[in-house]
Amino acid sequence: MSEFKLYSFFRSGTSHRLRIALNLKGLTSEYIPINLRTEQHLGEEYRKINPQGFVPSLVTGGTVLTQSPAIIEWLEESYPNPPLLPASMKDRATVRAMAALVGCDTHPINNRRILEYLRKQFGASEDQVNAWCTHWIEEAFDALEVLVKESNSKGTFCFGDTPTLADVYLVPQVESAKRFKVDLKRWPLIQAIDENCSQIAAFANAAPMKQMDAS
Amino acid sequence: MSEFKLYSFFRSGTSHRLRIALNLKGLTSEYIPINLRTEQHLGEEYRKINPQGFVPSLVTGGTVLTQSPAIIEWLEESYPNPPLLPASMKDRATVRAMAALVGCDTHPINNRRILEYLRKQFGASEDQVNAWCTHWIEEAFDALEVLVKESNSKGTFCFGDTPTLADVYLVPQVESAKRFKVDLKRWPLIQAIDENCSQIAAFANAAPMKQMDAS
Repeated sequence: MSEFKLYSFFRSGTSHRLRIALNLKGLTSEYIPINLRTEQHLGEEYRKINPQGFVPSLVTGGTVLTQSPAIIEWLEESYPNPPLLPASMKDRATVRAMAALVGCDTHPINNRRILEYLRKQFGASEDQVNAWCTHWIEEAFDALEVLVKESNSKGTFCFGDTPTLADVYLVPQVESAKRFKVDLKRWPLIQAIDENCSQIAAFANAAPMKQMDAS
Repeated sequence: MSEFKLYSFFRSGTSHRLRIALNLKGLTSEYIPINLRTEQHLGEEYRKINPQGFVPSLVTGGTVLTQSPAIIEWLEESYPNPPLLPASMKDRATVRAMAALVGCDTHPINNRRILEYLRKQFGASEDQVNAWCTHWIEEAFDALEVLVKESNSKGTFCFGDTPTLADVYLVPQVESAKRFKVDLKRWPLIQAIDENCSQIAAFANAAPMKQMDAS
């Protein structure tokens, strides 16, 4: 039996992100699906594990870890090999900035709960919801493409020739962009990186449609 | 002359967060105001420093650091004393989860650019904008209050008896909550922590109205 229990929803970008990080670290986990569509995450039972009611949560021994950025930093500290951050402090800051650009400035704004609010409180149509998501993704990818270019990436990965935290964050965001039919041609580096990641088992096996709760 | 140049806007929550972290580390910086109201952050000159056009940026030597979560982790690695993260990996994950709850799930959603979008694309009234901000702050503080309580805080700080990353993130979010007239009485621990932080020079001197560009 695995030492980890992963509470996840196949389509959740933050769950996807954590699945990639676990796979890159070579860690297996017991997958416990939490269905966001039926609002299982807001039910009393799951709230006992994670009071915020968000996925993912990672449980190991008696410890409950929440918030994917915190869990992924914990993984990096607890299982340093293979590293998901470069060695130099400056480079680490670059990679973390790329991750934050997705993790703070993009994903949370296009989150399910936000879109539900737009629909319910502002009467947003599906076209307006799509325009909203597309707008924030485009703004972020425009900036990220420059950051990646300036980091002298040859387009293998966001930073250097091995996957880092930045790729862990980027790939689920590209997945979401594809779902909103955002045309990725505008960002050739991001598109190439996503393609390169998809060739790696750790990324491929973390994909939403590969999960037991995919539907 | 200071070795740091801090590009900041007095009212920006992420700038505020970084000012607190710099102060707690005992680091001084040259303050360079970037006026978000006149959209100076979107101008060509500032984009040369930070292509995303966001504040804050921290420049040291020839290195430009962007994205406050990345900059603050860089500060923690470069200037480990006093530490802003606890020693044990589990506790570090707890503190980082509290920070992410604010830094990912709250602040970015109530950001200036988001509110502008709501006004322009959804014709949101100021009442609707306030309701939006209040909603996300309440949801976050409800969850954070539980996290803080479960971490056995006595209400001095978010975690333990010295300031951590969690307080660095929380205080600017409370500042924003006050501006939106959110009633803080609902979260006695958060309210006490904010009050305790305000007694510390590193926090007090980082406050928006103490900055040279305050208006």
